[in-house]
Amino acid sequence: MSSKYKALKQECYEANMELDALNLVIYTFGNVSAVDREKKVFAIKPSGVPYEELKPEDIVILDFDNTVIEGEMRPSSDTKTHAFLYKNWENIGGIAHTHATYSVAWAQAQLDIPIFGTTHADHLTADIPCAPPMRDELIEGNYEHNTGIQILDCFKDKNLSYEEVPMVLIGNHGPFTWGKDAAKAVYNSKVLEEVAKMALLTKQINPEAPRMKDSLIKKHYERKHGKNAYYGQN
Amino acid sequence: MSSKYKALKQECYEANMELDALNLVIYTFGNVSAVDREKKVFAIKPSGVPYEELKPEDIVILDFDNTVIEGEMRPSSDTKTHAFLYKNWENIGGIAHTHATYSVAWAQAQLDIPIFGTTHADHLTADIPCAPPMRDELIEGNYEHNTGIQILDCFKDKNLSYEEVPMVLIGNHGPFTWGKDAAKAVYNSKVLEEVAKMALLTKQINPEAPRMKDSLIKKHYERKHGKNAYYGQN
Amino acid sequence: MSSKYKALKQECYEANMELDALNLVIYTFGNVSAVDREKKVFAIKPSGVPYEELKPEDIVILDFDNTVIEGEMRPSSDTKTHAFLYKNWENIGGIAHTHATYSVAWAQAQLDIPIFGTTHADHLTADIPCAPPMRDELIEGNYEHNTGIQILDCFKDKNLSYEEVPMVLIGNHGPFTWGKDAAKAVYNSKVLEEVAKMALLTKQINPEAPRMKDSLIKKHYERKHGKNAYYGQN
Amino acid sequence: MSSKYKALKQECYEANMELDALNLVIYTFGNVSAVDREKKVFAIKPSGVPYEELKPEDIVILDFDNTVIEGEMRPSSDTKTHAFLYKNWENIGGIAHTHATYSVAWAQAQLDIPIFGTTHADHLTADIPCAPPMRDELIEGNYEHNTGIQILDCFKDKNLSYEEVPMVLIGNHGPFTWGKDAAKAVYNSKVLEEVAKMALLTKQINPEAPRMKDSLIKKHYERKHGKNAYYGQN
Repeated sequence: MSSKYKALKQECYEANMELDALNLVIYTFGNVSAVDREKKVFAIKPSGVPYEELKPEDIVILDFDNTVIEGEMRPSSDTKTHAFLYKNWENIGGIAHTHATYSVAWAQAQLDIPIFGTTHADHLTADIPCAPPMRDELIEGNYEHNTGIQILDCFKDKNLSYEEVPMVLIGNHGPFTWGKDAAKAVYNSKVLEEVAKMALLTKQINPEAPRMKDSLIKKHYERKHGKNAYYGQN
Repeated sequence: MSSKYKALKQECYEANMELDALNLVIYTFGNVSAVDREKKVFAIKPSGVPYEELKPEDIVILDFDNTVIEGEMRPSSDTKTHAFLYKNWENIGGIAHTHATYSVAWAQAQLDIPIFGTTHADHLTADIPCAPPMRDELIEGNYEHNTGIQILDCFKDKNLSYEEVPMVLIGNHGPFTWGKDAAKAVYNSKVLEEVAKMALLTKQINPEAPRMKDSLIKKHYERKHGKNAYYGQN
Repeated sequence: MSSKYKALKQECYEANMELDALNLVIYTFGNVSAVDREKKVFAIKPSGVPYEELKPEDIVILDFDNTVIEGEMRPSSDTKTHAFLYKNWENIGGIAHTHATYSVAWAQAQLDIPIFGTTHADHLTADIPCAPPMRDELIEGNYEHNTGIQILDCFKDKNLSYEEVPMVLIGNHGPFTWGKDAAKAVYNSKVLEEVAKMALLTKQINPEAPRMKDSLIKKHYERKHGKNAYYGQN
Repeated sequence: MSSKYKALKQECYEANMELDALNLVIYTFGNVSAVDREKKVFAIKPSGVPYEELKPEDIVILDFDNTVIEGEMRPSSDTKTHAFLYKNWENIGGIAHTHATYSVAWAQAQLDIPIFGTTHADHLTADIPCAPPMRDELIEGNYEHNTGIQILDCFKDKNLSYEEVPMVLIGNHGPFTWGKDAAKAVYNSKVLEEVAKMALLTKQINPEAPRMKDSLIKKHYERKHGKNAYYGQN
C-alpha cells in the first residue's frame, strides 16, 4: 500500500537507524522525528521497537496535536514533547532524543556544559543549557507535553534562541537536540555527546579550567555561521 | 541423541552468547542460566569454557538441589547461587552473572548505585542494592550457596522485592541480574552496566548531584510498568 | 585529466583517511596536509567534506602563501596554519590536526602534558607543550595564520625544537602534530592521543605522581633516536 | 627453508597477533616471547615491526645469553629482559610486554594495584606489584638486562612468588606478564588491563574502598587453584 508520507517515513527511519549506528543508544532507547511543514505532520519512531527490527513502514505519522494520522503502532512515549516543540518552534525540521552516556551524565549532574573549546564553539556559542527537573505539579500532569514547556521555559529564562542553540539537557533525564532536518538533529546529538565527554575530561584534568574567552568563541562561531563564513563548501 | 531439554539448552546457550556479544564479559567470565519451572530443572553454562567454543549441547541441566540431570561437563562454579535463587524466587525464569567493568567497580566500592535519572527509573525505582561482603563463617562454608543467602538477606534488610528490583551487586564481587527468562536477565545486566557507568560519571561531574525526585521516579516507572503504562507495543 | 600533483594528492588522501580509521575524528573534523618541497606546494583536505565521501581528486594544492594552485574545492579552514608552519619549519613533510577527545581535553585544560613514562619518552623528551589561548588582537586579525605564530612563539618561549617535539596543543582548541611525511604526522596524532589518555588516568590514580626521572627520559629517547639507537630495523 | 624452531616461531607469532587482536597495543608497541626449555632458546618478536606486517618467519630465536640463533631481523628492544627472566625463572614458558592504557597508568602512578575484588582474586592473591623506577646507575648501564634485575628485586623485597603472581608493573614504564606458555602470558596481560581499569574506577567511586577481606581472597583463589579446585573442566 502506498502512502503520501513515504518519503517522510524514510527520512525518519534513516535518522533513527543512524542513532543506533553512532552508538548513541542501546536497545529501544531514544527516538528521532522528522516534520513535513506543508502537510503539518511529523513522523516518529514507534515505542519500544529495537533498532534491528525497525522498518520504514513502522514509522508513525501524527499531527501537532498528537493525533495519529497513519501507522498501526503506538508512537514513542516521548511523542508529545516532539509535537510541542514542532508547534512552538517553526524553523526546526527534525528532533532527536537519546540516552547517550556522557550527555545523560551531565543531565543527571544538573549542570550546564561550559564552553571550554572550539569543538563546542564551532557549533554553538553558549554553554549547553540544562533545564532543571520538572516541578511536581507538572510531573503529575501531562508529563511529556510538560517536558516541552520545561524546555521552552529554560530557553526563555536563559535568553537563548533555539536557532542558535540546537540542544538542551533535561535535568535527571537526558538530551534533546534538533536541526533543519532529522539527520541534522542526529548530528547534533553526536556532537553533544562528544562535547559532553571532552568537558568532563577537561574538568578532571583541571578543575579550575576557565571557560573559553569571549573573543575566541565569537571568532569560531562566525567562521562557520557568520556572514563571511569560510568553513565548508557553500 | 535427542534430549527433552533441547529447547531449554538452546535458550540458555543463546543468552550466554549474548553476554559475550554485548561486551559484558571477557574469556570465560560470567554465566547465564534458564529455568523450566514445570520440569523443575535449570540449564547453565559449563565452567571455564570460552564463549567462542561453547555449543548448545555443552549446557548442563541440574535440579534445584544442584544434582546434574544431564550433561557431561562440570557446571559453572556459581551454579549453587543460581539454584538457591530459583528455589526461593519462584517468579524468575533466568539469571545472569557478569564481571562487567562498571558494575564490578560499584561492587568493589561497596556502594549502592543511587538513582540519578530516568534511564535508571525506567527500569527500577530503588537504588541498585550492594550486598555487603560475606561474613567469614559463611565464606568458609558452602560459599556459592551462601552467596544466595547473602542476596536474600540483602533484599530483606533493604525491604526490596525481587520482582521490582531485578539486580543486585555483591560487595567485592560483581552483579547478578534476573528476569522472566534468560534473555531478560541478560538485558538487565546490560542496563545495569550502562546505569553504573552513567552514575559514576554523574558523580565525577558533580559530587553533590542529588538523587532523582521521588515524584519523577514514580512517574517514569509507572509509564512503563504501571496500570496505565504507555511504553512499548502492548 | 592527469595532474603533476597526483602522487602528493594520493599521499594526502591516504593520511586523511587514516585519521578517520584511527578514530581520531568524527564527521568532518580534522585535516592532514602533505608537502612537496621541490615544487613548493602542499596538499590539504577540502573544508567540511565527510571522510566517507572524500576522494583523492578532491584534495586541494596550494603554495605557501595560500594561493590555490589546483583543485576546485575550498581548502580546509585551517589551511593558513599549515602554510605558515611549512614556510617556517623547513624539515617537516606533513601536518595533522584533529579534535581527538583526550588531546582536546588537555588543550581545554590549558596544561602541558607531563612526561610520566616511557610511552611518552620513546617519542619525545619534553612535556607536550600547550600554547596559551591567543591574545584578542590576534584573534580578531588573520586568525588561522596567527595560530601558526602562536605555535612558533610557544616553541620559542619554551625553548623547544620542532624536530624533537613533533606536536603541540593550542589552548581551548586542540592538537597539531607533524613529521617527515603525512603518515608520520598522523602517527604522532595517535601517539599523542594515547599519551594524553594515559597521563589523565595517571593523575586520577595518583594526583602526586612525579614526572619521569631525567636519567630515564634520556635513556628511552636515545635507544630510539640516539647515535647508538637499537630500536627498529635500521 | 625449514627450521627446527618452526613450531616455536608459530606459537610466538600467534601470541603476538593476539596482543593486537585484544587491543592491548597500537602500532609496534609490545612484544611476546615463547621458550623451548629443551632446546634452551626462546622466540621473540622483531623490533619495530607493525603487527599487520608481521609473519611467523620474522620471529627471532635467541639463547638465554641474548645470542641470535636464527632470524635475520633485530629482536625486540626488550629482549634482554625476557632472556633474564627465562634464565632465572625456570617454570615460565612465555612472557608478554604491553603498553596497555590502564596498566601503564598504574605503572606511571607508581602504585601497586590493590586487590579489590574477585576478578582479581580469581587470578592472584596479592596486590599487583609495581617495581620502583630504576636507580640511575642501573639505567646508565645495561638497561634492559637491569629491568630484569629490577623485577627480581621487587619480588624478593615483597616476598612474592613468580608462580603465584604472574605479572608486574615497572614504575614509569608498563607491565610484564608471564605464564606456562605465550598464550597464557597474553591472557594475563588482558586480565591485568581489566583489573587495572576496575581498580581505578573503584577508587573513583569510593576513595576509601577497602582491600578485599583476606578470607574471601583465600576462598576465590583456592576454588580455582587449590587442591580441591572446582573451577573449569579439569
